[in-house]
Amino acid sequence: MTAQPSPHKDAVRKILDAVKADKRASLTAPEGKLVCDAYGIPVPGEGVASSAAEAAKLADGMGYPVVLKIVSPDILHKTEAGGVIVGVKDAAAAREGYDKILASAKKYKADAKIEGVQVQQMLSGGTEVIIGAITDGSFGKLVAFGLGGVLVEVLKDVTFRLAPATKQDALSMLDGIQAHEMLHGVRGGDPVNRDALADVIVKVSQLVSDFPEISELDLNPVFATKQGAIAADVRIVLDFNQKPRPQVRSNEEIVAAMNRIMKPDALAVIGASAETGKIGNSVMKNLINGGYKGKIYPIHPKADEIMGMKAYKSVKDVPGEIDVAVFAIPAQFVAAALTECGEKKIAGAVLIPSGFAETGNVKGQEELQEIGRKYNIRLMGPNIYGFYYTWKDLCATFCTAYDVKGSAALSSQSGGIGMAIIGFSRSAKMGVSAIVGLGNKSDIDEDDLLAFFEQDDNTKVIAQHCEDLKDGRAFAEAAKRVSKKKPVIVLKAGRTSAGAKAASSHTGALAGNDKIYEDVFAQSGVVRARSLRQMLDFARGVPILPTPKGENVVIITGAGGSGVLLSDAVVDNGLSLMSFPKDLDEAFKKFIPPFGASGNPVDITGGEPPKTYQNTVKLGLEDDRIHALILGYWHTIVTPPMVFAKLMVEVYEEMRAKGKNKPVVASLAGDIEVEEAADYLYQHGIPAYAYSTEIPVEVLAAKYKWARGAGLL
Amino acid sequence: MTAQPSPHKDAVRKILDAVKADKRASLTAPEGKLVCDAYGIPVPGEGVASSAAEAAKLADGMGYPVVLKIVSPDILHKTEAGGVIVGVKDAAAAREGYDKILASAKKYKADAKIEGVQVQQMLSGGTEVIIGAITDGSFGKLVAFGLGGVLVEVLKDVTFRLAPATKQDALSMLDGIQAHEMLHGVRGGDPVNRDALADVIVKVSQLVSDFPEISELDLNPVFATKQGAIAADVRIVLDFNQKPRPQVRSNEEIVAAMNRIMKPDALAVIGASAETGKIGNSVMKNLINGGYKGKIYPIHPKADEIMGMKAYKSVKDVPGEIDVAVFAIPAQFVAAALTECGEKKIAGAVLIPSGFAETGNVKGQEELQEIGRKYNIRLMGPNIYGFYYTWKDLCATFCTAYDVKGSAALSSQSGGIGMAIIGFSRSAKMGVSAIVGLGNKSDIDEDDLLAFFEQDDNTKVIAQHCEDLKDGRAFAEAAKRVSKKKPVIVLKAGRTSAGAKAASSHTGALAGNDKIYEDVFAQSGVVRARSLRQMLDFARGVPILPTPKGENVVIITGAGGSGVLLSDAVVDNGLSLMSFPKDLDEAFKKFIPPFGASGNPVDITGGEPPKTYQNTVKLGLEDDRIHALILGYWHTIVTPPMVFAKLMVEVYEEMRAKGKNKPVVASLAGDIEVEEAADYLYQHGIPAYAYSTEIPVEVLAAKYKWARGAGLL
Repeated sequence: MTAQPSPHKDAVRKILDAVKADKRASLTAPEGKLVCDAYGIPVPGEGVASSAAEAAKLADGMGYPVVLKIVSPDILHKTEAGGVIVGVKDAAAAREGYDKILASAKKYKADAKIEGVQVQQMLSGGTEVIIGAITDGSFGKLVAFGLGGVLVEVLKDVTFRLAPATKQDALSMLDGIQAHEMLHGVRGGDPVNRDALADVIVKVSQLVSDFPEISELDLNPVFATKQGAIAADVRIVLDFNQKPRPQVRSNEEIVAAMNRIMKPDALAVIGASAETGKIGNSVMKNLINGGYKGKIYPIHPKADEIMGMKAYKSVKDVPGEIDVAVFAIPAQFVAAALTECGEKKIAGAVLIPSGFAETGNVKGQEELQEIGRKYNIRLMGPNIYGFYYTWKDLCATFCTAYDVKGSAALSSQSGGIGMAIIGFSRSAKMGVSAIVGLGNKSDIDEDDLLAFFEQDDNTKVIAQHCEDLKDGRAFAEAAKRVSKKKPVIVLKAGRTSAGAKAASSHTGALAGNDKIYEDVFAQSGVVRARSLRQMLDFARGVPILPTPKGENVVIITGAGGSGVLLSDAVVDNGLSLMSFPKDLDEAFKKFIPPFGASGNPVDITGGEPPKTYQNTVKLGLEDDRIHALILGYWHTIVTPPMVFAKLMVEVYEEMRAKGKNKPVVASLAGDIEVEEAADYLYQHGIPAYAYSTEIPVEVLAAKYKWARGAGLL
Repeated sequence: MTAQPSPHKDAVRKILDAVKADKRASLTAPEGKLVCDAYGIPVPGEGVASSAAEAAKLADGMGYPVVLKIVSPDILHKTEAGGVIVGVKDAAAAREGYDKILASAKKYKADAKIEGVQVQQMLSGGTEVIIGAITDGSFGKLVAFGLGGVLVEVLKDVTFRLAPATKQDALSMLDGIQAHEMLHGVRGGDPVNRDALADVIVKVSQLVSDFPEISELDLNPVFATKQGAIAADVRIVLDFNQKPRPQVRSNEEIVAAMNRIMKPDALAVIGASAETGKIGNSVMKNLINGGYKGKIYPIHPKADEIMGMKAYKSVKDVPGEIDVAVFAIPAQFVAAALTECGEKKIAGAVLIPSGFAETGNVKGQEELQEIGRKYNIRLMGPNIYGFYYTWKDLCATFCTAYDVKGSAALSSQSGGIGMAIIGFSRSAKMGVSAIVGLGNKSDIDEDDLLAFFEQDDNTKVIAQHCEDLKDGRAFAEAAKRVSKKKPVIVLKAGRTSAGAKAASSHTGALAGNDKIYEDVFAQSGVVRARSLRQMLDFARGVPILPTPKGENVVIITGAGGSGVLLSDAVVDNGLSLMSFPKDLDEAFKKFIPPFGASGNPVDITGGEPPKTYQNTVKLGLEDDRIHALILGYWHTIVTPPMVFAKLMVEVYEEMRAKGKNKPVVASLAGDIEVEEAADYLYQHGIPAYAYSTEIPVEVLAAKYKWARGAGLL
């Protein structure tokens, strides 16, 4: 609500109110034109002149060429009456045309009542594009852009951004379609006016943001020329019954609660048990054996003591403050215990129990949400494995414990994927700050976690598996802010229609159009993982890589064959192989055999001693024109895997001490000993992968994508 | 050379000869039209009529509508003279039009000399497509198809097939472009005549195959309508200096030699050595320790005995027959020793030494090729690690030994990739029949290996890494034949322009347009691997899977989250999630909790006991309407990983004994114990993968792609 006068909004409000009063759900063409006029969205100009001078003035105002048409209730066949002149090119021709039309009309029908001559802007070719807006259940208003024509429809070549879009967003849309080259002018054609097109996109996005009842809008086609962009046709659909956006908590409020939940000083286990096999027992064991240093209050209706700790009948009986309560009781008892937690002013409830929305018990879940709102207690779950926060030695879960401290924070909507995260982490020796199960997401969701991890100094990368986003807009806003500081990696499941169907039956969530996720993620600086393994590899590799200072990537390889595959991967992943200046090429050539290939990849050739790897990698790190290195190692007797690994770490650390801190990744081709070398390299800051030329490049590219999105490159 | 009369060929030959005599490199439009006419490629019909009846007859012959035009040297402005009538729709109108034109012409200029009236077929809309042909350095003649228009150019939406193409090939091209939907008729438009379009493609492909000197051909545009397809414009470029295709050996000849080389009874090691660190020593050790049972003849200029074996100065001194000689001597001595091998009638030389084309010593390599041709001795390499053939306990290599017998035959052009194959195989316990290094490919290449593995009963799948194909056509022909029997998997490196550049500097090979490889591989039934890891995973997983009998894939999952990701992967990989008939849905539902999702994926829900997995998987294997299973396992205390794995193998083997043999793959989400379970499952015929929902589906999809290409589905 703004108190400032805004005549353009008032004009649209008036039209929409009239349509609402009419009980219509869409605008007429003249109404649509008025709405466009109010927001400065160019539509063909038109007006009626009652003198030759006025015709010229009108035409001047809308730009040439124009069409002149007689306006007379008595002349039905305008052309026959000589009442139409097309392609009028300047003011003189407009004046002349006016006079000519009037003369012809009089000659055709002497007593015709002449109201004037309509002057109409003539749309002339250019490239036909579509600009539109839709309302998405999760993301709300989105603006869309694509080329016009049936072929584009067939290829579904369209791009979306959250509305309102900035000018920069709008410009990025012009490059965001597959056929973007068409806008640059092909076969000697003129390029479109990017500025004018982006302007229309921005205005459309502002219009639908100002008027939520505009559920769909289509400018189709928009004629985009060198001069400008004009919408030839506008279609506006209204929905006056749109749900308001859920109340959004302030960031401070979210962070305050999440800090108490994720890093509690005191914790209650509701349903704690000494009996092996019970969930409440597994939780207790994980807390105790995990080494949690805070206070643990077992809650049990009958026990006085559990696993050597004093037990309480209710959280309300606990003398001190409690930050978080972990629930390990059957679904039917959760609501009552949650109310007590609310009364105790506990910040959060970790709702492990299942038997809620995922089994059709939607009411039971809504009851919990109601209690949560009433007492301002945040709910994690229900239907989750719990969570881990390693820097507090906290395993608030019934699953296996995990304690390798590190900088990756992961979350999953599904318990199975959570278990995969644990298993992969242990297998790949990935240090984590946190692993969180979100399950049914009755309350706490991905954007709450983003807010917490943003300010959590132990976390350097955030990787999230999700099937739906309950409030995609809140997520996008949080991700946009957080990704400026830390990489945000998302594996969105249910991308495809078959996947979406399964997602739908799994969580009752509606899966969105994947292209919308794709574009909004990019707009929000989110790095998208394409597979589970990729999400895990990104979470593991990205945080240990320093941020590159530029786009010049260099491959140094002992195996020419790896060099080719690494080059393929570089292109596939949108990285740029540096083109060497002459002096740099010469400098590398000094270190390699005369038959080694010059240029990038630097092919040091097989069978070279450790010194050759050392010299070339050192040069690659030293020269400031190079911004990232990809190493291709070939296992030979002359340079065995661990010799290579140790030497690389030595060079890497030596150069880092000199301030030459660049991302380095490695692909190791060799016998099984390369696995040990890969582990060693990773533990020392160089993500390295055995038997793969793709994963190292994908991990490096993920770092690049993040850095570009965050404006660091 | 055919002795049959072929007037269409004679007609073209005459035209091309005339062009050659003229020293021209391209055809004029009328010449192009004549060539098209000869091959029945439809171009707009035209003819000159000298009577109304003749005009109607001509028009009847070419189909309506037609255009009529006066032909007179005295009438320059035909339209002004009333000498043109467009859109003539039937015979009566043609007759009438003829008379009208003559009358008008006489009226316009009474003394004009009238030669007649030209009747020309009118091309009317439809969809504009391009049909063409090019000559590729490796594949030879290729026919191309795409939509017309600038947008398609921008999107590079074009598809290729080897020429000559069959009708089936041609029809597949219509579905092989991204925008294929355009051909089906969109927005109420007519579909094109697929048969007519395919006919033109076949004819073009035949024409360029018959006349190799046609280096390029373009029919652009071709108007494709519901009725037919007509080429509006033809451009033909000639090159009379094309290199003839290299002489191709017969399959029998290749197989006979390759069998002696790959499964030798007697083998010489040229440069055998007792000195540790020497390549000739590593080779000897690998042969002896690998357990090779055939005869080994060490060759050394001075030694009498090496590693307990009698040594010879030359292969010529060896009393018995030798099948293959492994070279472990410096480059400069290779030629002389090779000549002796030739004189000894040895079938093949395994040329480990480097220092040939890859270091710029092209002459040295050509010398070896010359000797090879002279003595008909086949050359493997040079610049290779050698080869393994496990079923003969043969490690003819200086690398580490590998002896796990299995059914995957792998080859690599690069030594580094070869080492990655060894390492991965050992790590993933992959049984192999052979691993072969091809290096510089001076002679033996991928198609020779295909011919050998085709008839090698120990090999069930062939996986090849290559950077170029010296004779792409020979490869495609071999692959087309072999892939009918065994899956052929290819990792083509140098796909991207950056990758291609590295390939070029690495091997001196010219990398082709990747789309050509993509299409020719598909045409030849080759399953393309997109990454090194994927090639390895396919080689490992594909041969142990039985061939599916249909397209109905079912996911059975304990983790709903895995189900969603598996569904995504199913769609991404071109598989079809079976849509359940009611009775099957009911049958599954009987085994799962009431809140489990019905339909496919079958979500048995987390926390279920082993029995639920058992019942549902058994049903999946039993019902003949289901053709393949994807399992999503979730590690829980109730069903631990090895309990799951053993149970699955039990059910799988029980059903297989009953003739229910279907491909089953598994994705395991859980803690580190799932790795042991994955190994166990794989060893028992179920490719299973920890922490990945993508790899199992990709492996299953590779089996499907092969089966479809081989015509088994």
